[in-house]
Amino acid sequence: MGLLVQKFGGTAVGDPDRIRSVAEHVSRTVRHGNQVVLVVSAMGKETDSLLRLAEDVSSTRPGREMDMLITAGERKAMALMCMALHDLDLPADSFTGSQAGFVTDGEHQNARILEVRPDRVQAALDTGRIPVVGGSQGVSTDHNVTFLGRGGSDTTAVALAHALGADACELYTDVTGVFTTDPRVVPTAKRIDRISFDELLEMTATGCPKPAMRSVEYARTHGVRLHVRSAFTWQEGTWVDEEEPDMEQAIISAVTHDTSEAKMTISGVPDQPGIAARVFRELAEAGINVDMIVQNVSTEGVTDISFTVPHEYLDRAMSTGGSLSTEIGATGVVSDDAIAKVSVIGAGMRTNPGVAATMFETLADCGVNIQMISTSAIRVSCVVSEDRAEEAVTALHESFGLSGD
Amino acid sequence: MGLLVQKFGGTAVGDPDRIRSVAEHVSRTVRHGNQVVLVVSAMGKETDSLLRLAEDVSSTRPGREMDMLITAGERKAMALMCMALHDLDLPADSFTGSQAGFVTDGEHQNARILEVRPDRVQAALDTGRIPVVGGSQGVSTDHNVTFLGRGGSDTTAVALAHALGADACELYTDVTGVFTTDPRVVPTAKRIDRISFDELLEMTATGCPKPAMRSVEYARTHGVRLHVRSAFTWQEGTWVDEEEPDMEQAIISAVTHDTSEAKMTISGVPDQPGIAARVFRELAEAGINVDMIVQNVSTEGVTDISFTVPHEYLDRAMSTGGSLSTEIGATGVVSDDAIAKVSVIGAGMRTNPGVAATMFETLADCGVNIQMISTSAIRVSCVVSEDRAEEAVTALHESFGLSGD
Repeated sequence: MGLLVQKFGGTAVGDPDRIRSVAEHVSRTVRHGNQVVLVVSAMGKETDSLLRLAEDVSSTRPGREMDMLITAGERKAMALMCMALHDLDLPADSFTGSQAGFVTDGEHQNARILEVRPDRVQAALDTGRIPVVGGSQGVSTDHNVTFLGRGGSDTTAVALAHALGADACELYTDVTGVFTTDPRVVPTAKRIDRISFDELLEMTATGCPKPAMRSVEYARTHGVRLHVRSAFTWQEGTWVDEEEPDMEQAIISAVTHDTSEAKMTISGVPDQPGIAARVFRELAEAGINVDMIVQNVSTEGVTDISFTVPHEYLDRAMSTGGSLSTEIGATGVVSDDAIAKVSVIGAGMRTNPGVAATMFETLADCGVNIQMISTSAIRVSCVVSEDRAEEAVTALHESFGLSGD
Repeated sequence: MGLLVQKFGGTAVGDPDRIRSVAEHVSRTVRHGNQVVLVVSAMGKETDSLLRLAEDVSSTRPGREMDMLITAGERKAMALMCMALHDLDLPADSFTGSQAGFVTDGEHQNARILEVRPDRVQAALDTGRIPVVGGSQGVSTDHNVTFLGRGGSDTTAVALAHALGADACELYTDVTGVFTTDPRVVPTAKRIDRISFDELLEMTATGCPKPAMRSVEYARTHGVRLHVRSAFTWQEGTWVDEEEPDMEQAIISAVTHDTSEAKMTISGVPDQPGIAARVFRELAEAGINVDMIVQNVSTEGVTDISFTVPHEYLDRAMSTGGSLSTEIGATGVVSDDAIAKVSVIGAGMRTNPGVAATMFETLADCGVNIQMISTSAIRVSCVVSEDRAEEAVTALHESFGLSGD
């Protein structure tokens, strides 16, 4: 029927039983007439164990060696997976990122894919063998082993599916698909059967943890159909694909929330051309990832610039912001780390005005104060107090009609 | 004042403290003006753990995937070692067997080195960095990861020392050197300061467990000076080198014993040309490693052929021997797995007649019966009953004057 790239995450290959169970699923997929390429992550919590081991040994932990260490995890998982397939009379060959042709830049622990040359993977397929590729791995142009970062196996799978011209990329995880909101917060959250790349990308950017945002970006750019599904129930999950313009859109597809960021405000900033550019250039040069940025119109020649940063960057951002504030003649810098970003996402909002208004009304009705607002064509995000976040999510999920029966 | 290859075995790098301790030793070696290349085995019992994991997952365990799995062990150790060196301001780069230029045949789990092209290792040395190479690893000519087998790290170190033209290869282990006999059996055993390649080769072939025999063969063929020493006391150990002809030789350097083999006898074999060849060809084709072979002169046209095989091959050897016995018209096959091979080794016996006689007298004096005898130019071995082996070793160690004060 087709060529499928199937990616299995850490819990899906967490122990020998799980590995054999995945092999049986692959066997079923092959019996249905498909060709399969597997991508596997390290078993269970192995990557965490390797990181702890490195911390026990060294305080410096150079990136090249961290990548050499961490990639041992997928190496084990992929070799064991091949053995389990072999037991079922399915000949299989494991390939490291390097062997599978993943050429990356040299940014250790967070390498970017430059090119995928899957010649050996294709050759294995052509001789009826099942290639099993180590996720999140590559080799730099100067021949060093690289790691694509946590969650990089999703990206490996999508990039490989694109390079091989696969019919779909199946991401097997410990949830049954993409949900209308976090089911741990809202028990009536429903699994979404089908969603567009744009919507899923906005969701992963605003707090939906799986699949990894980078892999969704890659899939969207290259038009790789994704199927996000469970490695424990094997039931159909969520298909991710191009938007079909003639389809009737749900106005809102999902509500997300993210409590991993803090808010910073630089107050009394002189409203002159180039000031904002200078602020965010200096923060970027200090290695700080800035997310949501809001600047309001100025009053009496001064304005406030607010933005959010991940919690772990807050100290550094405050220190950079403090000296910057003096230099540009601002009046001060304040921060708040007890915030949450709550977002509603839906391709249908392009043609349905009033989504933002509904969102603000819903939050007002339950007495949740909005601290910052930011929008895109298919998303509205509000920063609210962290302790009101779950209440806000529940109310929005209900008011946009997403709850199941 | 030279280039040293230092190899550290599993217990020497068994935990984070041990890894840091090795890094400090390397730092001392470098401060004394040496260049250092490290070879490391997998940490502690990790290779055993990986083998158990494979057994838990699979009953078939194809060799290619076993090698991919097992080499994850050295990969972890070498990356962690580089981090520990980096903490001491010693820049270091880890290299897999493939990256270090170890080209092997495709015999998985027991690959043979075909060629060593240590270009990247040399380049790292040339820029003042410490190369740390994963032991017992290589890449086959068809680009698959290979494992040289248990104990293969010693061979990696020796081959690398040869390829780099190193001044010596230091094998760090959990004993302080090579001993005149097993100190667990004879407490008065002495560490040998200096021994020839030929003698150490005979010792490792007859029961001395470290260093691995293959590495001693490689060192002997290529004239690589070895220094076998402890990674726990750091004291000088045993130097292994060419024999110096003008040096006064001890007649006997060491007494070894080996209880890992069983004895098999094919009785009443017709004494015709080609029969022995046929016996050992068929055993070889059944994959059975035969060690000591003894055939006496024939009486009335028939003879007995005895040989030893490792315990784990005995069942297979008995089955092959049984059918063979019928085909060649022998009268039967018997085996005994409660035997030990006791050997005395010494280059001095070439010019000192009477060593064999002394050995037999010593064994007779303590009432140990000799079942088989085999000799080389510098070794005499006797097969005795396993339960008398330690007594025989103790008596021989005493009678050849090897005991310390």
